[in-house]
Amino acid sequence: FGELQVPEISASRVPPLLTDLYQFTMAYAYWRAGRHQEPAAFELFFRDNPFGGGFSLFAGLHDCLLFVRSFRFTDEDVEFLRSVLPPATEPAFFQFLRGLDCSGVMLRSVPEGTVVFARVPLMEVAGPLAVVQLLETSLLCLVNYASLVCSNAARFRLAAGPRRKLLEMGLRRAQGPDGGLTASRYTHIGGFDLTSNVQAGFLFGVPVAGTMAHSYVTSFTSLEEVWPQVSMLNGDPDPVDFISLTKGWLTRVCELLRAEHGKIREGELAAFLSYAIAYPQNFLPVIDSYSVGCSGLLNFCAVALALCELGYRPVGVRLDSGDLCRQSVDVRRVFRLCSEQFSISAFDSLIIVGTNNISEQSMAELNKKENEIDVVGVGTHLVTCTKQPSLGCVYKLVEVRGRPRMKISEDPEKSTVPGRKHVYRLIDAEGHPFLDLQCLAVEPPPEAGVSLSCYPLGCDNSSVSVTPAQVVCLRQEVFTKGQVRLGRATSFPFRQLVHIFVFSSEKSLVGFTPEVDWKSG
Amino acid sequence: FGELQVPEISASRVPPLLTDLYQFTMAYAYWRAGRHQEPAAFELFFRDNPFGGGFSLFAGLHDCLLFVRSFRFTDEDVEFLRSVLPPATEPAFFQFLRGLDCSGVMLRSVPEGTVVFARVPLMEVAGPLAVVQLLETSLLCLVNYASLVCSNAARFRLAAGPRRKLLEMGLRRAQGPDGGLTASRYTHIGGFDLTSNVQAGFLFGVPVAGTMAHSYVTSFTSLEEVWPQVSMLNGDPDPVDFISLTKGWLTRVCELLRAEHGKIREGELAAFLSYAIAYPQNFLPVIDSYSVGCSGLLNFCAVALALCELGYRPVGVRLDSGDLCRQSVDVRRVFRLCSEQFSISAFDSLIIVGTNNISEQSMAELNKKENEIDVVGVGTHLVTCTKQPSLGCVYKLVEVRGRPRMKISEDPEKSTVPGRKHVYRLIDAEGHPFLDLQCLAVEPPPEAGVSLSCYPLGCDNSSVSVTPAQVVCLRQEVFTKGQVRLGRATSFPFRQLVHIFVFSSEKSLVGFTPEVDWKSG
Repeated sequence: FGELQVPEISASRVPPLLTDLYQFTMAYAYWRAGRHQEPAAFELFFRDNPFGGGFSLFAGLHDCLLFVRSFRFTDEDVEFLRSVLPPATEPAFFQFLRGLDCSGVMLRSVPEGTVVFARVPLMEVAGPLAVVQLLETSLLCLVNYASLVCSNAARFRLAAGPRRKLLEMGLRRAQGPDGGLTASRYTHIGGFDLTSNVQAGFLFGVPVAGTMAHSYVTSFTSLEEVWPQVSMLNGDPDPVDFISLTKGWLTRVCELLRAEHGKIREGELAAFLSYAIAYPQNFLPVIDSYSVGCSGLLNFCAVALALCELGYRPVGVRLDSGDLCRQSVDVRRVFRLCSEQFSISAFDSLIIVGTNNISEQSMAELNKKENEIDVVGVGTHLVTCTKQPSLGCVYKLVEVRGRPRMKISEDPEKSTVPGRKHVYRLIDAEGHPFLDLQCLAVEPPPEAGVSLSCYPLGCDNSSVSVTPAQVVCLRQEVFTKGQVRLGRATSFPFRQLVHIFVFSSEKSLVGFTPEVDWKSG
Repeated sequence: FGELQVPEISASRVPPLLTDLYQFTMAYAYWRAGRHQEPAAFELFFRDNPFGGGFSLFAGLHDCLLFVRSFRFTDEDVEFLRSVLPPATEPAFFQFLRGLDCSGVMLRSVPEGTVVFARVPLMEVAGPLAVVQLLETSLLCLVNYASLVCSNAARFRLAAGPRRKLLEMGLRRAQGPDGGLTASRYTHIGGFDLTSNVQAGFLFGVPVAGTMAHSYVTSFTSLEEVWPQVSMLNGDPDPVDFISLTKGWLTRVCELLRAEHGKIREGELAAFLSYAIAYPQNFLPVIDSYSVGCSGLLNFCAVALALCELGYRPVGVRLDSGDLCRQSVDVRRVFRLCSEQFSISAFDSLIIVGTNNISEQSMAELNKKENEIDVVGVGTHLVTCTKQPSLGCVYKLVEVRGRPRMKISEDPEKSTVPGRKHVYRLIDAEGHPFLDLQCLAVEPPPEAGVSLSCYPLGCDNSSVSVTPAQVVCLRQEVFTKGQVRLGRATSFPFRQLVHIFVFSSEKSLVGFTPEVDWKSG
C-alpha cells in the first residue's frame, strides 16, 4: 500500500457550512458570554473497534488538514447563517465569523494509516473555544468513514492473505460519489493493490485496472461486427486474418475439450476478437456473459491462442457469477491442457480474476476451498462496510482554560475521561508494540527500560507492571499557527502489526496510568 | 416534504473521470471497431426492493441531469487517460474523447421521489454506444445511494407515523462529506422535516435545526462564567438580574419536586443561563449531560420559568441518552406540574426532542410504548442505512441498432429482459395505483377502461386480466439534445401511496405484457 505521503490536493472537501447548526448557536452563546477565545481542547476517539474486531486503522488526517487550513467563511456563507440563526443574533457576531480562521488551532494526531485501538484519543484539537467547537462535525465526518473503510480493507487483506491481489471496484454502489472516491483512496492505504476508479488514480495515484463489462460482450451479435475484418492488431505492421486464425484455434480447442461447437456464442467471440484487436497486449475478457464452460472459456482460449501465435501474451479471464472457486479450478485445468497440448507456455501464467459480491467472510472462505483465483475484485461489502456501515468517532471536550472537563451520562459508556493526555506506544524487546499508554499531559513520559504500572482497559481495577524496551509518542503536532507540519512521525502501518490482530481479542492493548481516573471516566 | 423542484445548482458532483477504467477500454474497443456511434439503449433498475421491503423511492435524478449536462473531458482528463490506458491506444481516440458530450443522449426517467418497485426500468439511457456506456458507473453511483437513503427515510417516516417531527442529524457518521449532504437532501424528500446540516439548507433549502451539544454544557463550571451577570437578554432593552431570578425559580422548583439542591450542577445551570441570555426565544437545551432527574430538568425548569416571567416562550428540551420514552414521560409530568403550580401555560406546549441511536425498529417501538417525544432526531441508522447500506441498481444493455440485447448469466437472477420498454402505472377507480406494467416500446399502450392481460412478476406463468381506470406513463424524457426538460410529469410521492406499503408484501405490483418474455429473461 505504498507510502503514506500526502498528495498535493489544495481544495478541502468540506465547506465550513457542512456542519450541524448547533455549532453556530453554541458559538454565538460563547461569543455572547465573552468565552469564545478561552483556550479549550477536544479529543477525537471511538469507543469500540469496528466490525467486532480488535483494532482499527486511523485515516482521514490529510482531509482534516486541508479542512482546517482552508477553514474560512465567505460573505455568502455568513449571509446564509444570518438567515437561519435566530433574529436576535447580534450583527457583530457575523463580523466575528467572517474573520475566523484556524490560525489559533493546534492539531495533534496519530499518523494516517496507523493501527489504533478503541478509547485512545487519536486527535487532540486545541484552540479558542468557539473555533474548536465549530470544527467538530466536519472533523468527525472526515475521520469516521475514512477510518472505517480503511479498517475494512485491512480486514479483507488479512482474510485474503498476502499473496492474492485485491482490486477495489465499489464506486457504483458507494454512498455517493465522494463515498466512492474516499473508499478507493483509503482502501489502498488499508492494503488493496488496485482500484477501478479512474478519478482515484488521477487525484491520489492509486493504480487503476479494468477491461470489460458484460454489456460490451452482449453488444456484439456476429463476426460481421468485427472490424477491420482483415485486421492490423494495434502496433502490428502486418495485416493478418485474425478471425480465420481464431476460428482455426476454436476448432482445435473444441476438439481438445470435446465441446459442442453449436453452443458457442458468436457474439461473444466477436466481442473478444474486437477487444483483442484493440488491445492485443491487454486481453482479459469477462467470460460468463452466457456460459463459461460452453462458450466463454472456449472463445477466450481460441482468441488467446491466436494472440500467442502472433507473439502477444494474453493476460487472463474474469469470472463474475456462480461458484468462483469451482469455475476457477475448471478454467485453470483447461489453461494447463492448452499449454501442454499446444505447447503454449504463456497459458501457464494466465491470471484468473474473481468478482461476485465478495464479503470478508467469503474472502476468508477462498483460503479454505480449492481455487485458482489470482485477483479478487471487491465492491459493495468493501466500500459500504455492510458489516458495520459507520464508525462512532466522537469529539469530546476535555479541558477549558487549563481545567479538565468531563461529561457524565445516563449511559455510563458515554461518559468521558477528563484532561489532556499524551499517548505512548510501548514496544517490546522484539520490536513489537504491546501497549498504548495514556497519561495525563502533565505527567512525565514513560522511559525505555524503566518499569511502570498501569491499568489495562477492561481489566477491572488491577494494575500491571510493564517495562517497555522502547517508547514512541503516538501523536505528533500536525497543524499549528495555520500551517500543516508533517514531520517524520513514526508510522505504524498495519502490515508491521499483524501480530496485534492475533492477540487483540485476547488481551487489552490500551492502558491508563494510575493518575488517569479511567474507572470514573 | 415539500415540492419536488430542481434547485439551480450548476455544478455536477461527478467529474467524468469518476468512473471505472473499463468504461474507457470498452469505449476504445468500440471506437476501434467503428461501433462507437451505433444507437444503443441501457436500462437502469434494481433487482430487489431495499431493506426487505415492498417498495423503494427513486431519487438522484437531479444529480444525473447535472452530470449528463456537463459531461465533458478536459485536456487534463484526457492526458491522464493517456497515461493509464494501454500504450497501444491510438492517439485519435483521445481526440474523440476530448470532443465528446451528451448532446446525442436521451434520458427517460421516473420523476424524483417516486415510489417504484424492483425490476422496473427506472431510467432509459439511449444514444451513441460508446457514450451511453461511459455514463454507466456515474449514473449508478448517483442513483443508488440517493434512492437508498430516500427509501430509508420513507421507512422511518412510516414507522414514526405522520404526527411526529423528524430531524436528520447524521452528517458526522455519514460515509464521507458528500454522503452526509446527499443524505440530508434525500431524506427530506423521503419524509423528514428538518436537518442539522447547514450546507443542505444553503444548497437545497432544507429547513435546519439545532441548539446545543453536551460539550457546550460541560464547558461551564460556575455561575461566574455567565456574562453579563446583570444581563440584557437579546432584544430586551431593560437589564435584569437574570441569575437571581433563575435562582429563585430553582428554589421553588426544587421545593415543588422535593429535589435535593445539592445535586444540581452549577456549570449546567450556567450553560443554560448563558444560552437563554443569547437566545431567549430559542431555549431548547440538552438536559442529560449529568443527570436529567437530579440536575438537567430542574435547571431547565428554573431558566424556562424565569424566561416566561420575562415574557419569553421557552421551546423545550432534548434527551440524548438512556430510556427516552420513560424519561420523556417523567419530563412531561414535571412540565405539567410546573404549568399548574405556577400557572405558566407556556409549559403546556414545551416540546421534547429525543436523539439516541434511533433505528427504524426503535422508531416503530416508540409508537407502542408510552412516551411524550415530539421530535425525533435520527443519525447513523438513517444516513448509513445500517439495515442495508447499498442499493443494487444495475445498468443493462437492452438494445443496439434497434435489435434487442440480453445477458444470460450463470446466476439466473442476473439475466436481463431484452428490448426497450415502456412503463405504465395503472390506476384503479378509487385513484389508487395498483400495477406497474412493462410493455415493449413497440407495443400499443394500455388504455383506460380497456381490459388487458399481463403476467404479474413472480406469479409463475399465469396471466391475469386487469382493467385500469386510468393509465399514466411512468417515465418522461428528461434530457434530450443536450438540454434538461423537466415537464409536468405525474409525480407519485410516497404519501399518496401509503396503501401500497400495506399490500406490496402480499401481491405483485409489477406486471409484464405477454409480449415481453420475462420468463426467459
